Amino acid sequence: MHDAVEVIIAKRDGATLSDSQIDWVIDAYTSGEVADEQMSALAMAILLNGMTRDEIARWTDAMIASGERMDFSSLSRPTADKHSTGGVGDKITLPLAPLVAACGVAVPQLSGRGLGHTGGTLDKLEAIPGWRATLSNEEVFAQLESVGAVVCAAGDGLAPADKKLYALRDVTGTVEAVPLIASSIMSKKIAEGTGALVLDVKVGSGAFMKDLEKAQELAETMVALGTDAGVHTVALLTDMSTPLGRSAGNAVEVAESVEVLAGGGPADVVELTVALAREMLAGAGRDDVDPGEVLASGGAMDSWKAMVRAQGGDPDAPLPTARHTHDVTAPVSGTLTRLDAMAVGMAAWRLGAGRARKEDPVQAGAGVEWHTRPGEEVTAGQPLFTLHTDDEARLERALASLEGGYDIGDAASYDPTPLLLGRVAP
Amino acid sequence: MHDAVEVIIAKRDGATLSDSQIDWVIDAYTSGEVADEQMSALAMAILLNGMTRDEIARWTDAMIASGERMDFSSLSRPTADKHSTGGVGDKITLPLAPLVAACGVAVPQLSGRGLGHTGGTLDKLEAIPGWRATLSNEEVFAQLESVGAVVCAAGDGLAPADKKLYALRDVTGTVEAVPLIASSIMSKKIAEGTGALVLDVKVGSGAFMKDLEKAQELAETMVALGTDAGVHTVALLTDMSTPLGRSAGNAVEVAESVEVLAGGGPADVVELTVALAREMLAGAGRDDVDPGEVLASGGAMDSWKAMVRAQGGDPDAPLPTARHTHDVTAPVSGTLTRLDAMAVGMAAWRLGAGRARKEDPVQAGAGVEWHTRPGEEVTAGQPLFTLHTDDEARLERALASLEGGYDIGDAASYDPTPLLLGRVAP
Repeated sequence: MHDAVEVIIAKRDGATLSDSQIDWVIDAYTSGEVADEQMSALAMAILLNGMTRDEIARWTDAMIASGERMDFSSLSRPTADKHSTGGVGDKITLPLAPLVAACGVAVPQLSGRGLGHTGGTLDKLEAIPGWRATLSNEEVFAQLESVGAVVCAAGDGLAPADKKLYALRDVTGTVEAVPLIASSIMSKKIAEGTGALVLDVKVGSGAFMKDLEKAQELAETMVALGTDAGVHTVALLTDMSTPLGRSAGNAVEVAESVEVLAGGGPADVVELTVALAREMLAGAGRDDVDPGEVLASGGAMDSWKAMVRAQGGDPDAPLPTARHTHDVTAPVSGTLTRLDAMAVGMAAWRLGAGRARKEDPVQAGAGVEWHTRPGEEVTAGQPLFTLHTDDEARLERALASLEGGYDIGDAASYDPTPLLLGRVAP
Repeated sequence: MHDAVEVIIAKRDGATLSDSQIDWVIDAYTSGEVADEQMSALAMAILLNGMTRDEIARWTDAMIASGERMDFSSLSRPTADKHSTGGVGDKITLPLAPLVAACGVAVPQLSGRGLGHTGGTLDKLEAIPGWRATLSNEEVFAQLESVGAVVCAAGDGLAPADKKLYALRDVTGTVEAVPLIASSIMSKKIAEGTGALVLDVKVGSGAFMKDLEKAQELAETMVALGTDAGVHTVALLTDMSTPLGRSAGNAVEVAESVEVLAGGGPADVVELTVALAREMLAGAGRDDVDPGEVLASGGAMDSWKAMVRAQGGDPDAPLPTARHTHDVTAPVSGTLTRLDAMAVGMAAWRLGAGRARKEDPVQAGAGVEWHTRPGEEVTAGQPLFTLHTDDEARLERALASLEGGYDIGDAASYDPTPLLLGRVAP
């Protein structure tokens, strides 16, 4: 009916792929009839020549059709989920999922693992003693009914074509294609069966998308895909030139999230958690509830503890700590005018908080804490960062990534970036 | 030192690859460190983003360095070779190699096999009973000294990186990239060790390059590569909208070549053979000899017979014929105003003269003869084509490819295309 070279050449020469070409190539790639070297050539042609909205929608549908599709419509409450395109210190899911559950909307978050300088939510939660990421579909369903929130590993059944393609893109320089990013994220989220979805599209040095225009394009593409699939989808564009909160790593971010759930924590983490919760609740038809009040009152803490316990974790157990810590002190006094998300993310990754290959283990205790956020004052000699790692040999490269990653100047030269940069709705 | 994703991303984003990136990626691909799916993504990025002349030169050098390099400088006569980018009915090597040898210049033609609608020189020669394509390097050398012409299969030792890359490009829609075509051809020809080289760059429906501009670009790129490597290189741009001579296939083309060697044969085959011979002789410093006179006098026939015999063939044995023949008659009377090379090439291929995969066998007797060339008169009911095949079931699809492949009109509407379209010299 079709063959791989025909489909590759069509996209290479700038044509729009037909529905039948797209269905065929995704199906044949999943079954192994289309080889990796053919799909990578096609992915590069898509990256360089683009895809129309219709092509992306069909591609997404074909990836969904490659696996199972979950259905939570029989739950006693509506569902809403959030997906972040990945940032440094982005622990938002940890306070957000129990907060939204506490407001009466179920959160079925089926996640992947982190790769590279942005951490993974599952890696962070695995820092909690006993917590396990893998649940059966029945367990997911039961936990959503009883607790109202699940954050777990996506099973192999959801969009297997995407799983295979994602691994291929990672080694072939074809990750950065808007059609492929959008269809990868949305195929999993649509197959997951959530009723509403809020996308947190990160923009800035520590994000995948460095500029607002590209991020806006990605957000619009994903919102259209979700809407067409019957999912209430909204995207927020948020700053990732500065890392979120005051820590990046695994256990350190869990600790910070617990502070937020207790009604404290860094202001930016609270602001983003509440903004995303508000969108999720609105998407699920519950805009009568104010998540800000629920969070400030500590009302989400019970949901958090129940969520952790339901997956075998002990929310009251002490969190693991790294064997070694190292302070970086401020060289001069002044105002911290810049803290670069990529520099901090690379440092945390090199300390052992993240992985280079998907088989690699991560260190629960590894990470970076910064004691000063942009706009705050520092005094020469005062600790600016504390680095945590089990492996002292990793310090040198981590320190190297922090070099040039911050500026200390006078208060007048500090130009704060707003956290919320834009909103895309259908 | 380098890694595959870094090199792919550089080319994807439009950068010029460094010498060290090129050397590394070719070496790592040859050894298997760079995977096929990585090289195909890089090939697609090269196809879409191009390469500078310097990048192509380095890429070619790296492919040559992946294998052995032959050296014919100790032969008692100079060497010259010809490479055609592939056409329909392109039997020119068969009369050309012995003609140039008869004029005192040795021809070391190390060839590949045909794929698709353009036939392969080795396939044609293998129609001769007993002839074998595989020679050792020592046999090549001895035959060049004794006979003056060798047409044989290129050994695995020449540019193995190209062999691997060519097979990959064939299945990944990345054949049509000028930098990759030019470096593929020139790496083998430079490694082969010829002193002079004439490139026959085909242009038109039956050629790889459909338009003159693209063909000119390819010719200029290859001439520059050869010149920089110290090979006297010239390219002729020649028409391939009409097939060459009066037959396309294997044994049928050998028979036609023998007619040319005997001083007869179709005028266009004679014209191109002599034009290419003149360039080869000039490149080898022997422009004192007139190959037209040598050919017309039948003086190349002895070299032909000696060349065939040296490789085990019997030049006087009857050639194989196909089990079935089928005539296509002219539907109306008039002048043949168009004969499409692609239509004829596809018909010959479908009759069994060519192969779809490199493992496939070919039929020695299969092919197409056309009894009328453009500009000649036909009478309704008179045979226009004779189709030859061992397998009658192949006729239907072969006939379908000839449909619409020719026009019969009035003499006034015939607009002849010149055979020689251009020349590119350093």
